[in-house]
Order: sequence, then structure tokens, then C-alpha cells
Amino acid sequence: MISDISVIAFDADDTLWVNEPYFQETEALFCGLLEDYLPHHTVSQELFKTEMANLELYGYGIKSFMLCMIETVLRVSENTASPEVFHKVLQYGKEMLDKPIVLLDGVEDVLQALSGKYRLVVATKGDLLDQERKLRKSGLEHYFHHIEIMSDKKERDYSKLIKHLDCRPEEFLMMGNSLKSDVLPVLALGGHAIHIPYHTTWQHEHIDHTIEDPRFYQFNTMADILPHLIS
Amino acid sequence: MISDISVIAFDADDTLWVNEPYFQETEALFCGLLEDYLPHHTVSQELFKTEMANLELYGYGIKSFMLCMIETVLRVSENTASPEVFHKVLQYGKEMLDKPIVLLDGVEDVLQALSGKYRLVVATKGDLLDQERKLRKSGLEHYFHHIEIMSDKKERDYSKLIKHLDCRPEEFLMMGNSLKSDVLPVLALGGHAIHIPYHTTWQHEHIDHTIEDPRFYQFNTMADILPHLIS
Repeated sequence: MISDISVIAFDADDTLWVNEPYFQETEALFCGLLEDYLPHHTVSQELFKTEMANLELYGYGIKSFMLCMIETVLRVSENTASPEVFHKVLQYGKEMLDKPIVLLDGVEDVLQALSGKYRLVVATKGDLLDQERKLRKSGLEHYFHHIEIMSDKKERDYSKLIKHLDCRPEEFLMMGNSLKSDVLPVLALGGHAIHIPYHTTWQHEHIDHTIEDPRFYQFNTMADILPHLIS
Repeated sequence: MISDISVIAFDADDTLWVNEPYFQETEALFCGLLEDYLPHHTVSQELFKTEMANLELYGYGIKSFMLCMIETVLRVSENTASPEVFHKVLQYGKEMLDKPIVLLDGVEDVLQALSGKYRLVVATKGDLLDQERKLRKSGLEHYFHHIEIMSDKKERDYSKLIKHLDCRPEEFLMMGNSLKSDVLPVLALGGHAIHIPYHTTWQHEHIDHTIEDPRFYQFNTMADILPHLIS
């Protein structure tokens, strides 16, 4: 049993529901649009470069991704791309914004089981309107005491959240698929963190070291956490 | 004196600082880009049409505005615009995101005077990252007990905010430049609202009727409110 926890915070994208595969599908289509100019994997690298260069200015989310695709088209095609390519980019982005929400295995059962025993919150980064819409579409909103949509997930962002929730870091447990965004900053503050890897992770979320911390746990699926949180 | 108020909420764009003029400047440049296709005022109407069509999907903010400019270029030019035009749109948008914050007259004095006497909060709609950045750049953050960045400003959004602040609507006073977003929904909930018109308002925020409500007040500048809030 993980003891003395009062708040459990869930990441949303690729923790509660499918997200990254939609970005990867769109990226594959996007690379196809530019294959007359560069091979797929090079376009993909160029897109990532654009995303990193604009991250501070644009932040996370689909609208940022759309703007980065457009900028990448201009650069990769050296201003020779046809307007049809820009059309396609807008279309791909709008389709992403309109995707159905597909819950990951066991999510609803786990929320149901933990509900009433802990204060459950969502802590997700990304675009405000888009994340609110996904939560509404997910049908999971009623399980949560509080929804925090953050512009980033660094230590100071979690610190603000924990203060807002009026709990101590030792009572706070974060659960998510990203070691970089969901685990490391929370451990640094003295909180607990559960990592549930997803089969695919955005390159920006990768870290290349192992984590040793008594408040760090790793499970394969969300259902695996229950025996550790319910006696 | 407006009595029994405990929380004063401020809109941000065009209430605390300059915003709409930046959109209008950019729109003028944008219309210039397309003047070979259509006269300025028609491009402007086309852009507004695109914004309204995408509002539910994209929400408010500069990134949405950029994506709408791109879509308008494609439609107005009937897919014949040169890549240079898309370049310019990205450049204009990035410049907007990077604008300095210019506080409106009297704002800092008013916050100073009200500080400690009321709980002061910011209630603004728009893009999460962009609004956070503007608040940080404004140097005003320390006056506020709470910052609420909302995806929209309808009755249900204010209702959530008032509940979150744990006050009654009658104790809540909202101050802003938009009758539609800052005044009407708050009055409908039983709260108080002060309208401080700004010299220019986005077409989407216009209403065409007058407001008669004992909890509605209108002043020319923010400094004019002080005698009504401080005895």
C-alpha cells in the first residue's frame, strides 16, 4: 500500500485516453505531403525542429502543431509548395481537433474504484479549449474534484497546483505516461509519482536516465495500481 | 458606494492592458497582403467570417487568429497566393505574441488602492500560455489572489468561477470593456458589473441593446471607480 495519500492527480493525454497516436498519424500524412522534397524521416526531423524552436512562443497543443506544420512546409519546400499543401495541413489539424475520445483500458474502472476514497484531479498540459472539450467528451468529468489545465508541467507548475489543492506534497500522487512531465518534477517536490508507460511517447518527453526514488512506482497498466491504493 | 462586495474580478485584454489595437494593426497589414484580390474591407469581412466559423473549434487567441488568416488567404486568393503571403502571416502572428504589455491609464493605481480591501482576481478568456505570459510581463500578478483563464465567458463559466472563489454572486463584481462577455453574464447570475468602454471593440463583442440593471455601472476610466469602492 502507498500510504498517506489524499490527492491523486491524473495526466490526461495517453494516460486517460489516446492522444500521441493521433499526432503520429497526422505526422505521417504530413510527411507524405512533402515527399517530393525530402524523405519522410527528414521531414519529421524538420517538423520537430520547428516545434522546439516555437515551443516557448506557441506552447503545446494541436493549434501550435498546425502552425509548426505550416512553417515546416515553407522551409522544406523553399517557398515552392502549392496552396493545396496548406489546405491539407488545416484539414488535418481540424480533423485532429474533432477526434473522438478513446479511453485507455481500465481507466473508468480505476476511477470508479478510487472515487470517494481520494480526491481525484486532472493535471494536464496543452490547449485550454481543446483539453476542456476532451474532458467533456470523455464522460469522466464527474469523477474529478478539480481540473488543472497547465501551460507547462515543471516543478513550479506542480508547486502551484499542490498549494491550490491545499495538501502537502507527501500527500500528493501524480500518475502519468511521461517521466519528464508527470514524474520527475513531482518527485523533486517530495510528492509520489506512478509511471504507466504508453506504447509511444513524443520525442520531447524522453529522458535518458533511470529513476531511483522510494516514492516512484512503475506499473504496466492503470488497473495494476489498485492493490497499492485500496486495501 | 457599491456595498457588500468581497471579490473584484478584472478582465485583462483592453481592461488592464492594450490588446484589440494589436489585432486591428495586424488585420490592416493582412488586408494589405491580399489587396490584389479584394478591397481591404472585404478581406476584413472574410477574415471575420473565417473566425466565426472556427470559433467553436479553435477558441480565442492569437494562434487561432493566425490559423484563420491562413485559411482566409487560401479562400480569398482561390489558392493562388504565393508562399510569401503565408510567411508574412506567421511573422505577423509571432510579432503579436511577442508584443510588449502596455498598461491602460490608472490601472496600477487602482489595483494598489483596492489591494487589501477586496480579493482581486483576473478573469480573462483566450489562450492559456499567452495570457499567462502577458500577466507575467505586466508586473501586476502580485495584486491578484487568483487568476482565471477561461475558454469562454458565458454564464456557466462565471458560475464555476464564483463557486470556486467561494463567494455569493451578490458579493462578486466584474469589471471589463465588453458588455457581452464581462457584463451581461455576470448580471444574469445576480452579480455586479462595471463597464469601462475601450475606444475600440472587436465586432464579435458588440451588443445592440441598452442595459438597465441596478447592479450595472458604467465609467469612462478605471480611476473613476475608486470613489464607489473606497469610502
